Amino acid sequence: MFVMGIDPGLSRCGYGVVVRAPGCGRSGMRAVAAGVLTTPSTDPLPDRLAAVAEAIDGLLHEFSPAVVVVERVLFQTNARTAMAVGQASGLALAAAARQGATVVQYSPNEVKLAVTGDGRADKRAVQTMVTRLLGLADVPKPPDAADALALACCHLGRSRLLERVPT
Amino acid sequence: MFVMGIDPGLSRCGYGVVVRAPGCGRSGMRAVAAGVLTTPSTDPLPDRLAAVAEAIDGLLHEFSPAVVVVERVLFQTNARTAMAVGQASGLALAAAARQGATVVQYSPNEVKLAVTGDGRADKRAVQTMVTRLLGLADVPKPPDAADALALACCHLGRSRLLERVPT
Repeated sequence: MFVMGIDPGLSRCGYGVVVRAPGCGRSGMRAVAAGVLTTPSTDPLPDRLAAVAEAIDGLLHEFSPAVVVVERVLFQTNARTAMAVGQASGLALAAAARQGATVVQYSPNEVKLAVTGDGRADKRAVQTMVTRLLGLADVPKPPDAADALALACCHLGRSRLLERVPT
Repeated sequence: MFVMGIDPGLSRCGYGVVVRAPGCGRSGMRAVAAGVLTTPSTDPLPDRLAAVAEAIDGLLHEFSPAVVVVERVLFQTNARTAMAVGQASGLALAAAARQGATVVQYSPNEVKLAVTGDGRADKRAVQTMVTRLLGLADVPKPPDAADALALACCHLGRSRLLERVPT
């Protein structure tokens, strides 16, 4: 079962695909793909959004993830950036739902907590933990790709925990 | 040449298609279609966004507008609503650009100014002017549909003015 994390953005939109597989170290997770979609800030907004939408559709088609995890967009100090990120997140959420995937959102703090045990961990700590959890030789680059992998790990970690809760 | 206005929203997304045609009264504009897309607030966000995206794709396919005019989203007091409207606007902008339409955004004040001559006109004044400009018997309903028609009228009015500017 592929889980795709998407760290939405217009200048940089990270993605990462993780699979839960037996024999993949202690975490039981393995990275399948990770990368970043970029659009030039000099392009008009509609063209940039169209390019991100098209690229996300391509990724969903390529990996057919059962679950897509999109980072929840919080309002930042820069309203213009927040709106662009919000628009990109809308594209990701809609595309994933149209593809029939289960769509989940986590806040940055929820991801930090799930991956490192500390909801206020810094980016570096998250990246180090993602590298370990996925048994990678190096920290995934660029950081947007690592963040997207963290989203997928967060979801798999949480659902694994839920399975262990006695009912 | 069809011009489609989209007043983005998640609960209610207005659309209106206007054509510039000779013999259509003094404004030279005629309404082709108008309506509102709605999604139930009880549905999960990704499903609502997917439904809006699918409906917008359907409208673009049906009318093949040369120009799509999307209302520019401004930050309102309610951050949660602004984000949902922003996400819906992102879908409209991306879908229109992917369809090959020219995509334009105007702020609410620009639309009011273009349609009524007063950038601070109230909703009722805008609706009355849209009704007159398009030679309609009644004010278009619901209000979201009238707002979308106003966006299309705004664009056609502005481009008509530009054509008259001596070069």
